[in-house]
Amino acid sequence: MNQQYPSVLLEKAVGEFAKLPGIGRKTAMRLVLHLLRQDNATVEAFSNAISTLKKEVKYCKVCHNISDTDVCRICSNPSRDATTVCVVENIRDVMAVENTQQYRGLYHVLGGVISPMDGIGPSDLEIDSLVERVKSGTIKEVILALSSTMEGDTTNFYIFRKLAGYDVKITMIARGISIGDELQYTDEVTLGRSIVNRVAFTGTL
Amino acid sequence: MNQQYPSVLLEKAVGEFAKLPGIGRKTAMRLVLHLLRQDNATVEAFSNAISTLKKEVKYCKVCHNISDTDVCRICSNPSRDATTVCVVENIRDVMAVENTQQYRGLYHVLGGVISPMDGIGPSDLEIDSLVERVKSGTIKEVILALSSTMEGDTTNFYIFRKLAGYDVKITMIARGISIGDELQYTDEVTLGRSIVNRVAFTGTL
Repeated sequence: MNQQYPSVLLEKAVGEFAKLPGIGRKTAMRLVLHLLRQDNATVEAFSNAISTLKKEVKYCKVCHNISDTDVCRICSNPSRDATTVCVVENIRDVMAVENTQQYRGLYHVLGGVISPMDGIGPSDLEIDSLVERVKSGTIKEVILALSSTMEGDTTNFYIFRKLAGYDVKITMIARGISIGDELQYTDEVTLGRSIVNRVAFTGTL
Repeated sequence: MNQQYPSVLLEKAVGEFAKLPGIGRKTAMRLVLHLLRQDNATVEAFSNAISTLKKEVKYCKVCHNISDTDVCRICSNPSRDATTVCVVENIRDVMAVENTQQYRGLYHVLGGVISPMDGIGPSDLEIDSLVERVKSGTIKEVILALSSTMEGDTTNFYIFRKLAGYDVKITMIARGISIGDELQYTDEVTLGRSIVNRVAFTGTL
């Protein structure tokens, strides 16, 4: 089917777009042809934005959120409550919680959840660094805000056990969100309320 | 809502993706985070494929199809029938016709159809160059293969008038009910025209 492409360069660009999740070859073709119709500067801006992001992006040394600086805007903001840490799976979840405008504490981005099926164990996640943060003594409350899935629950429980010896309150966002739903797709009202109504994590659901 | 992005670089990349047709900010975010999870080489390959395409792509001097060379693969292929030219709107239509494997002639890519509402007149399209090709004398048949819309019909008619003085047969791709369509769901205009333009039944399809 390769011969169908009138240009190798076109085929390459379409192929690269088609590697993205949820983008088939037809959509890829549509996107590439759209870019081709734009002027050079627009296409350069597109191409540069992606390669610059990849080259220059940093991750906050404290919370591991994506950042332009060594310590992210949230961690370095003195008006945020440094005694509370919200543990989330990824940076989209940070953005989701931020959008609720219900939370003024800090975050801790795990980088995923424990998922043996995908070969992701506790050591692949930022759990040890969370324990270190708690050990340092400033944190009074750790809010577990992981997706309401089996993997999320497993990770909640693992963190709960890891933090058991420390003088820190462990809470979990309220299960107002429906079981099986992923955090990033939850509407803001539900997500906001589930943060306000967080409950003590007792090791059982 | 800008503050929601933890990184300016991230926001820029998401913004660029969100400019693409049919890509909202949520999808853009998903695509950018996907790219961020890939290694540097993969992201460079993606970024390069697009900027190289835009910088180095050529359009065939003869048919105006996209090409890596001055004259495209189809126009420079001696086994294609140079006496027949199929007039299409864009390069996707070239690919669509090529995929049928029913056509061995050449193409002429107009770059659009006449559409006064969008400010596209005959001079914005490759109509004069089509007339030049016909004038040169090799072409015996021009097949009009534009979309079956008012704009397509207008363009068909305009080209027909422009080529009126030349010794060339002008044909139009057949319009009628699609293969596999049920008669009861076909719209009245299509069905009516397919009855008026009925063809002799020869016992084969």
